[in-house]
Amino acid sequence: MSKKTVVVLGVDGYLGWATALHLSQAGHDVVGIDSLVRRRWDRECGTQSLIPIKPMKQRVNLWHRLTGRTISWRKMDLRDARAVTALVKETHPDALIHFAEQRSAPFSMIDLPHASLTQVNNLVGTLNLLFALRDHAPRAHLIKLGTMGEYGTPNIDIEEGFIVIKHNGREDRLPFPMQPGSFYHLSKLHDSHNIQFACRIWGLRATDLHQGVVYGNHTDEVAMHPGLATRFDYDAIWGTVLNRFCIQAALGLPLTVYGKGGQTRGFLDIRDTVACVRLALEHPAAGGEYRVFNQFTEQFSVKALAAKVRDARAAHGLKTSIVHLPNPRVEREEHYYNAKHQKLLDLGLQPHYLGDTLIESVIGTVERHAARVDPVELEQPNVDWRRGGTAGWQKAAETVAAVEAETRPVVVLSSSPKRRRPASAAAAASARLAQRR
Amino acid sequence: MSKKTVVVLGVDGYLGWATALHLSQAGHDVVGIDSLVRRRWDRECGTQSLIPIKPMKQRVNLWHRLTGRTISWRKMDLRDARAVTALVKETHPDALIHFAEQRSAPFSMIDLPHASLTQVNNLVGTLNLLFALRDHAPRAHLIKLGTMGEYGTPNIDIEEGFIVIKHNGREDRLPFPMQPGSFYHLSKLHDSHNIQFACRIWGLRATDLHQGVVYGNHTDEVAMHPGLATRFDYDAIWGTVLNRFCIQAALGLPLTVYGKGGQTRGFLDIRDTVACVRLALEHPAAGGEYRVFNQFTEQFSVKALAAKVRDARAAHGLKTSIVHLPNPRVEREEHYYNAKHQKLLDLGLQPHYLGDTLIESVIGTVERHAARVDPVELEQPNVDWRRGGTAGWQKAAETVAAVEAETRPVVVLSSSPKRRRPASAAAAASARLAQRR
Repeated sequence: MSKKTVVVLGVDGYLGWATALHLSQAGHDVVGIDSLVRRRWDRECGTQSLIPIKPMKQRVNLWHRLTGRTISWRKMDLRDARAVTALVKETHPDALIHFAEQRSAPFSMIDLPHASLTQVNNLVGTLNLLFALRDHAPRAHLIKLGTMGEYGTPNIDIEEGFIVIKHNGREDRLPFPMQPGSFYHLSKLHDSHNIQFACRIWGLRATDLHQGVVYGNHTDEVAMHPGLATRFDYDAIWGTVLNRFCIQAALGLPLTVYGKGGQTRGFLDIRDTVACVRLALEHPAAGGEYRVFNQFTEQFSVKALAAKVRDARAAHGLKTSIVHLPNPRVEREEHYYNAKHQKLLDLGLQPHYLGDTLIESVIGTVERHAARVDPVELEQPNVDWRRGGTAGWQKAAETVAAVEAETRPVVVLSSSPKRRRPASAAAAASARLAQRR
Repeated sequence: MSKKTVVVLGVDGYLGWATALHLSQAGHDVVGIDSLVRRRWDRECGTQSLIPIKPMKQRVNLWHRLTGRTISWRKMDLRDARAVTALVKETHPDALIHFAEQRSAPFSMIDLPHASLTQVNNLVGTLNLLFALRDHAPRAHLIKLGTMGEYGTPNIDIEEGFIVIKHNGREDRLPFPMQPGSFYHLSKLHDSHNIQFACRIWGLRATDLHQGVVYGNHTDEVAMHPGLATRFDYDAIWGTVLNRFCIQAALGLPLTVYGKGGQTRGFLDIRDTVACVRLALEHPAAGGEYRVFNQFTEQFSVKALAAKVRDARAAHGLKTSIVHLPNPRVEREEHYYNAKHQKLLDLGLQPHYLGDTLIESVIGTVERHAARVDPVELEQPNVDWRRGGTAGWQKAAETVAAVEAETRPVVVLSSSPKRRRPASAAAAASARLAQRR
């Protein structure tokens, strides 16, 4: 394997950080970029990572101390076209791993400013990258994090990006028809189309990783030292479903399933995320090629996932209940779902399938950080697909209205900080947790 | 037919103005909205409408004087979310016809700022509308101008928006796979996905008119008085192909075909545009329905279109030559093309097919305004899909670099005015024209 210069965009995020460590450990030269906006959004949403994370500078210093390897860190906003151009010119990257987008579906559904922010932020950042690559690094490999959510839930098998369609006696291989389910998922689809076009007209090379829902919080590298921890989100805005179930189980709270729970999605372990990105990096797309890998290892319905967590707990004699909440999203709750995910396996992916051990390990991590859990975040979802953000978000919407009035595209980053940590609920949950130990 | 309150967004444009007159004449209450940015872009590009157009206020006053009918005009930028909300609340529209987007493919391909501007402008404006409709007029009918260019040139028949796909023994009706050919066309596709999603989750109703290339400059209403003229573009940025051929023929210049000229597209007469919009208006989509009409009447290859113009001239004993220029676009120059366009016919559209009479009438119009023709605009294309804007645009790109450096999404409206009107070329063309009269 030849050493590559790799820029990881969004290096401060849940997966960006773990990926940067993994690629650095594999011997690649890693440049890490982030605007740190995710930490700001946490302050605005009143949310935080369950596991404390260090500032970027401390993390990369620690990594260097532990391994002798250097991750070159710089703070930068991808929406700054001049900075993106300078980055590409200075680093001469072989590849760029692009995680640097607003990545929460509920966040994008809060209200108009958050929908606009999500789409403008994600599209403009990616356009800036594409033009910089055209002009200064046309042979670099763009590895873009997309999402399985671009496909929606069609009543036919989901292929990897393209499908051969026979129609009226003719046939063509065409982009798979897409039906995303939030303004966030739509932004990823818009990106996919823009990137595919840039590959076609400029001969760029790109891999669009249509990733499933990631769970877990440990990779070999992250596990080396607590100071290398990556973030772990469980709240209704930033958290993903399995992580949330594990926290609920740890606190003795019921697992909350939205609607019937028949919603089926692809899932993968964070260790497989970093392995998949590395496989894409070390087996680049050809010049002019736009390819799609469906990046997940197993598919589960939400209710099957809840049952898995319940059963893992039952094996230790712990009883866990499952409740169904009204679904805040507009989505099919019972549907056909069969998505292909062969291409990464063909490149050599060795999946970590979801087992009781992983579930217990996540629950163990949660218990170590139980004092940081905000139980309010585990109750009702606070963003509804039909009406937008509830309670705290209503206030935010008013605050941003003034900014919105400018006749500029709306990129409102701020809403008034919302601190929702009622002492009583937190105390009750801690008490419950203490009882079970 | 019941009278409707209709907001025409982009009323100052080529089709917006003609549509507003047509709907007003049909007895509907028309509110016309525009930011007038198109006139600013003309100043920036050094382009102008061949036919002089009056300021909006004069046009609507003249319309009132001639017909007694009122078009309620207000200047407004669709990117201003607060203004959009106020508009929807105040007008209680039955329908909104949305032409208010950056609509030139070459403009979007000049450079990064123009690509970003096109996508941000178009997406944010449409998102603002969607949220305003959700909150204040959920039963209003959104009629959105899309483009046949969203489909690209697949090797199968193009259906109207959706296709039934059979795959591995199952089937579903899914969005037709799209392959747009410029950042502009991509912006329309992004809009289509956003609108479709809003209909699904909020129950809005929308008609997406995937329109072909429009030609001609007269409708019954526009023809009432020279002061009611709508714009007529022929330059390489804003002009469409048949209009350009007619001007070239009028000036005795060769018709310039890009590449082989096998590029086949759908075309329609401007009289059919206004009729189609009216049909969509008077036969609205159902609540929650997102429907697509392919809005064109005939399909031609570019070289067939050039031959039609040449033959129309030959009938009057005038010789016209056809030259092939290197294609500035990246597109298939020979391909299968068969696009359905049945739904508007089913609603009662009576097409005006392209004939010699129309071509002669356009050429006649051109001759009346020959003094305003800038022959430089008829020579080489000035935007290349691979390299971006040439000559004048290089300069503009530098000017906007400073603005681009801000870490905000790039919405750069200005570039230094470009005045390219070499006296010698203009004189030569006028002389040629004079000889033929």
